[in-house]
Amino acid sequence: MTAELIAVGTELLLGNIANTDAQMLSEKLSALGITVHHHTVVGDNPQRLEEVLKTARRRADIIITTGGLGPTYDDLTKQTICRTFGRELELHEDILEEIRAWFQTKMGKTMPENNVQQAMLPVNCTVFDNPVGTAPGCAFEENGVHVLMLPGPPFECRYMFENRAARYLEKLTDGVIVSHEIKIFGMGESSVEEALREPMTTLTNPTLAPYAKLNECMVRATARAGTREEAEAMLAPLVERVRGILGDVVYGVDVESLEAVVSGLLRERGLTLSAAESCTGGLVAKRMTDLPGASGVFRGGVVSYTNGVKAGVLGVPEELLERFGAVSEPVARSMAECCRKICGSDLALSVTGVAGPDTDDRGNEVGTVFIALTDGNETICRKLSCGRGRGRDRVRSAAAGNAFDMIRRRLLGLPV
Amino acid sequence: MTAELIAVGTELLLGNIANTDAQMLSEKLSALGITVHHHTVVGDNPQRLEEVLKTARRRADIIITTGGLGPTYDDLTKQTICRTFGRELELHEDILEEIRAWFQTKMGKTMPENNVQQAMLPVNCTVFDNPVGTAPGCAFEENGVHVLMLPGPPFECRYMFENRAARYLEKLTDGVIVSHEIKIFGMGESSVEEALREPMTTLTNPTLAPYAKLNECMVRATARAGTREEAEAMLAPLVERVRGILGDVVYGVDVESLEAVVSGLLRERGLTLSAAESCTGGLVAKRMTDLPGASGVFRGGVVSYTNGVKAGVLGVPEELLERFGAVSEPVARSMAECCRKICGSDLALSVTGVAGPDTDDRGNEVGTVFIALTDGNETICRKLSCGRGRGRDRVRSAAAGNAFDMIRRRLLGLPV
Repeated sequence: MTAELIAVGTELLLGNIANTDAQMLSEKLSALGITVHHHTVVGDNPQRLEEVLKTARRRADIIITTGGLGPTYDDLTKQTICRTFGRELELHEDILEEIRAWFQTKMGKTMPENNVQQAMLPVNCTVFDNPVGTAPGCAFEENGVHVLMLPGPPFECRYMFENRAARYLEKLTDGVIVSHEIKIFGMGESSVEEALREPMTTLTNPTLAPYAKLNECMVRATARAGTREEAEAMLAPLVERVRGILGDVVYGVDVESLEAVVSGLLRERGLTLSAAESCTGGLVAKRMTDLPGASGVFRGGVVSYTNGVKAGVLGVPEELLERFGAVSEPVARSMAECCRKICGSDLALSVTGVAGPDTDDRGNEVGTVFIALTDGNETICRKLSCGRGRGRDRVRSAAAGNAFDMIRRRLLGLPV
Repeated sequence: MTAELIAVGTELLLGNIANTDAQMLSEKLSALGITVHHHTVVGDNPQRLEEVLKTARRRADIIITTGGLGPTYDDLTKQTICRTFGRELELHEDILEEIRAWFQTKMGKTMPENNVQQAMLPVNCTVFDNPVGTAPGCAFEENGVHVLMLPGPPFECRYMFENRAARYLEKLTDGVIVSHEIKIFGMGESSVEEALREPMTTLTNPTLAPYAKLNECMVRATARAGTREEAEAMLAPLVERVRGILGDVVYGVDVESLEAVVSGLLRERGLTLSAAESCTGGLVAKRMTDLPGASGVFRGGVVSYTNGVKAGVLGVPEELLERFGAVSEPVARSMAECCRKICGSDLALSVTGVAGPDTDDRGNEVGTVFIALTDGNETICRKLSCGRGRGRDRVRSAAAGNAFDMIRRRLLGLPV
């Protein structure tokens, strides 16, 4: 089956926001085995929306709209879809009660009267209720074309797709589609494709598809089968095969992020971490503390962006800084060891390097980064040269990623 | 004039990347006074691309494509456009030499032969050379419709638009279009719209348009005139009028970010800053060090994510932590004062609060944040309650933004 995504909202055409709903839905539809052939963005304009819907109806089996379900005069998606497909809108009393209750409990106020519009839905539709916002979504089928309406705010759109729309779509396809994400750090997308060329090009069910992310990549294995159990039985050997081919660069399957894996390993082992950061300037700490409940494993750290802080707060000997410079292995080692002592953590890591745009005062190239990790007994160090053609953001992101990779490898007893 | 943006690339339809080119171009076209009515995304498929081009030709004066200009077999944008619009492709020897030179100097290798394809361009087109990549772009006019082809990689696309395509488009419009961005922190988009309703709804040239960003907002003033000087003369009083209406929530015009303004103020005054962060977990430091050259004004800081680090590294008295809890005004004040001492900076700020998802052990609500700023003589403190309906990311971002806002206000002598 093929799908077209239609995003409705003048704010997208003004460049106020990017169409991230389309990205999220495309990735999820692909995992369901549904092929997306077009994305379209149109403003809050009923004539242009109607024209776009008529075009989509001719070329897609499934039309998914995002946005335009709000309570204001420029939210016209439902009305325009109903006119185009010849359906009436009707009031759903139960949905209206849910919206009223949402205002009372979540917003602490009475529902404004224009929100009644949100409880008007097409006759004979499947309702997608919205526990994380006020706009319900819905779906109906007309002459073999399925039309699904989802809210525009990304959090609501994702929630409604995952918890409501995905089940609707699964019923349209024969059997179930199950996929697993194999996450990789330390091997580029082209090397991954090279290594997996044979299964990627020959397999048809299950399938393998690669995705590049910032400084890492991911392979998705997808199977279609009669039942979830059958699909899982098809996927298990494939995932093992990929692990076997790629080896220990696979840091997890269906895990959120490398730092989440590190956090989980620390928690399992009852260990705590701290970080002394120079060129990453707080990025390692920020990523660790992006995770809820981080305080159980991450004690904190020092952003020693200047030599004064490296010496004064961390306690790195001035003599080391003068002799080797801030961007050097001895200073990286000392930063980690000092950080561990003052923060009282089991493990500590340090990052010092040249993020750019310029080389440092000792002539170190942009992208030269030293990362050290200590457990109090032993300190290990990794040197990166990741500057070629990369901006400041990418160098810092690569440095943070490598720092997490070192911890993971150390805790699992893998070569670092 | 109206424009349609067509992005070409199967990676967009798979959800591998978001269509950020469309956002960037939409914002820039809007600033040029060109109205965007549609975005379309289509895969690397010549039939579907041709169909989409024919639809766009009927409804837009300007078609801008992004992507599909690479050297591989699935890069088909130029060929498909030429077929659709009845043009031939011809080899541009000078462009070919530029691509060869780019490989030699930037990549340190010989140009692969399939890159010759990139020097094939439509007959009688305006060439957009590409000093930041290999794919040149181009533009031509056919029956009153202008077709512009830009590369897909966001950095190249932005560069080519700003430095090549924008001039081509400016010539299509009468005179020049100049715009200024008025950046605002501390007033929501709806309040800004309310305050500026009269000029926003009545002015036609120059115009004012609001944009919401994460935890802040922006108003763009745009003028169309015969010359740049005339446009600037029209804009100057409007920008002053907006400043007059909104007051000191305007933190700058055409500035990069709030932290960039803070950094500039510190540099002007020869002052240094450090930061003690609890709930923001390094975000303030990360944002300060996102700016190249940050080490001149930002000494570093401590991520005191746990009480042990607050006491042990910063030196916050245990007694304060026990009596008031980590999320309290006395602890925020002490964190800032201790941070200033140990980092040896002129100013220091601190952030301590509840980012969520849960309330803290003393029952403080998610979004309760204390921010303190000290210069050694005086310490000031701000309390936020920014949790209602917001996730962890937004609370942390609001806390960091408020921290920068306090420094800016303090340095400018504005009420904090």
